[in-house]
Amino acid sequence: MTETAPRPTLEAVAARAGVSRATVSRVVNGGDGVRKPLVERVRRAVEELGYVPNQAARSLVTKRNDAVAVVIAEPETRVFADPFFALQLRGISKELTAHDSQLVLLLTEGRADHARVGRYLAGGHVDGALVFSLHLQDPLPQLVQRAGVPTVFGGRPGWDDGTGGAVYVDSDNRGGAREAVRHLVGLGRRRIAHITGALDQTSAVDRLDGFRDVMGDADPRLIAEGDFTPAGGERAMRRLLEGCPDLDAVFAANDLTAAGALRVLRALGRRVPDDVAVIGFDDMLPVAEHTDPPLTTVRQDIEGMGRLMARLLLRGLDQGTGAPDPGGSSVAEDGPSSVVLPTTLVRRASA
Amino acid sequence: MTETAPRPTLEAVAARAGVSRATVSRVVNGGDGVRKPLVERVRRAVEELGYVPNQAARSLVTKRNDAVAVVIAEPETRVFADPFFALQLRGISKELTAHDSQLVLLLTEGRADHARVGRYLAGGHVDGALVFSLHLQDPLPQLVQRAGVPTVFGGRPGWDDGTGGAVYVDSDNRGGAREAVRHLVGLGRRRIAHITGALDQTSAVDRLDGFRDVMGDADPRLIAEGDFTPAGGERAMRRLLEGCPDLDAVFAANDLTAAGALRVLRALGRRVPDDVAVIGFDDMLPVAEHTDPPLTTVRQDIEGMGRLMARLLLRGLDQGTGAPDPGGSSVAEDGPSSVVLPTTLVRRASA
Repeated sequence: MTETAPRPTLEAVAARAGVSRATVSRVVNGGDGVRKPLVERVRRAVEELGYVPNQAARSLVTKRNDAVAVVIAEPETRVFADPFFALQLRGISKELTAHDSQLVLLLTEGRADHARVGRYLAGGHVDGALVFSLHLQDPLPQLVQRAGVPTVFGGRPGWDDGTGGAVYVDSDNRGGAREAVRHLVGLGRRRIAHITGALDQTSAVDRLDGFRDVMGDADPRLIAEGDFTPAGGERAMRRLLEGCPDLDAVFAANDLTAAGALRVLRALGRRVPDDVAVIGFDDMLPVAEHTDPPLTTVRQDIEGMGRLMARLLLRGLDQGTGAPDPGGSSVAEDGPSSVVLPTTLVRRASA
Repeated sequence: MTETAPRPTLEAVAARAGVSRATVSRVVNGGDGVRKPLVERVRRAVEELGYVPNQAARSLVTKRNDAVAVVIAEPETRVFADPFFALQLRGISKELTAHDSQLVLLLTEGRADHARVGRYLAGGHVDGALVFSLHLQDPLPQLVQRAGVPTVFGGRPGWDDGTGGAVYVDSDNRGGAREAVRHLVGLGRRRIAHITGALDQTSAVDRLDGFRDVMGDADPRLIAEGDFTPAGGERAMRRLLEGCPDLDAVFAANDLTAAGALRVLRALGRRVPDDVAVIGFDDMLPVAEHTDPPLTTVRQDIEGMGRLMARLLLRGLDQGTGAPDPGGSSVAEDGPSSVVLPTTLVRRASA
């Protein structure tokens, strides 16, 4: 442990500034009703002494921590292995920093730890939460709701009934998938396969639906379940080739899955795109640019989604009572509503 | 924002369990002096109702949040680009989870945000802090000390005077560097160069000192400053080859630096290890195994360092008053002391 000098007190600041304790307290909590020169004097004393108000006590008064929790419903090993999360966090971090709000990332080893995350969220340590990568059956959404902190979700939550109960930011997963598959059809491909993402996530379900919108009830052997990882993509690609050796195209649920599929196709001597055309989803750099061949993919603005999540949350906090009550509902009648961002097909060499 | 059901109150739990408010409160805060069957009954009611105590208020009583902050003194872009941090966080996460303590990672865009981190630490939201990748001139250590939270550092802090003021976990950087350079000497190399790490970090300074321990006052053109990144390694390797075209070995301050150096050597047609032997530091997998050729390196147990940091902090918290005061010093007289872990040379093909 570090040895610590005694922390400067409110009294010390008051003495230094030549004002009363009450004045210091008012300035520290926003300065309402204090004359400007006094505010300046107190601020100077705060700075000189390095005074830090006791936020735990202060937050009981102001109800604001200037901090936002980010919860990714994945074990920390996946958070650091999948660049999707780093990109989304980058967007969130930039936006929160611009508003001088601290990004508090709550990491876990897995689902068993989500109750503890719920307790931290309920503890009044943050003003709101950004929650993403939700899986069906995960108790996290209920825990978040019980915690009573204003929340914006990344990706449409699975339980949402469309009545606007939850605010989320999502990409047009179904529309993007349709565009990818139509592109393959336009190239003259007829035996088009799909490797899904983790089907307990709405993004994977929506992309599968988009595939089916175009292909109808395709040969069920042309659909193989993946899990958004390269290893999952490899396994699914092998299964597809065993069941349908004549397939001539693959739409993979994300770029990492496509990268795994490409490795298997190369190992088995299938030329891409000549024998098999491949399309991914995300346009995650540098993954999509560095596959062999470079990947045609459906672009979604991952960093932008992160920024937007943070922006919606902060706007909601400001529009609320000005001091959202972490213990209750803070939904303003005219609060933010969900946003679904468009996607675009990016053509490279693989399809 | 999510719509939230009203949060169950302490009163509701008391009614459900058929006990008094005071009993519920005592159970929630540890259960001292409450008979076992009553504790059980309250726990069941808490679970059934999904009651979450108001931690902000509770922490003013118990002074314990069951949460530990991790601060990495790097912008979030580097945190996610350098696998060193993911490994150290993995160790920390495992250890904290085993003690049901929440890992709270405070991300920043850069040094300008460290004052905000200091405010969060001082706010009573966490029981302690693990701080790593400190740079000289960084105000973070002072902010941490002012915040008054028990802290364990990763890597020897630059300001430490050796009297035990700060508790840290480090590797034997100087001894490991000596072993690497002696190995190169043993291979018959005579023109041995060193690419340093970021010299505002003690780990880089210690590795440079180890190099000098063996090589004495080497030709100054044989030392080039890097920054622990592959790009820095590439730049330094080019400078070294310009100044000393006859060099026959390179000791790089970490594996990422070595990976950059190897790329330049290959591009310029120098064979490794025949023309130039290369040694790294870290044994960071998969980096060290996947370079061409695979990298001889000095192994440090990065994940183990993370575990140990967390363990020392938790032990310190338990040995303190049992309820360390986040506002004051909690150094127990018999508190934890710093640990320096040994390193080992791992031989692969590059030297």
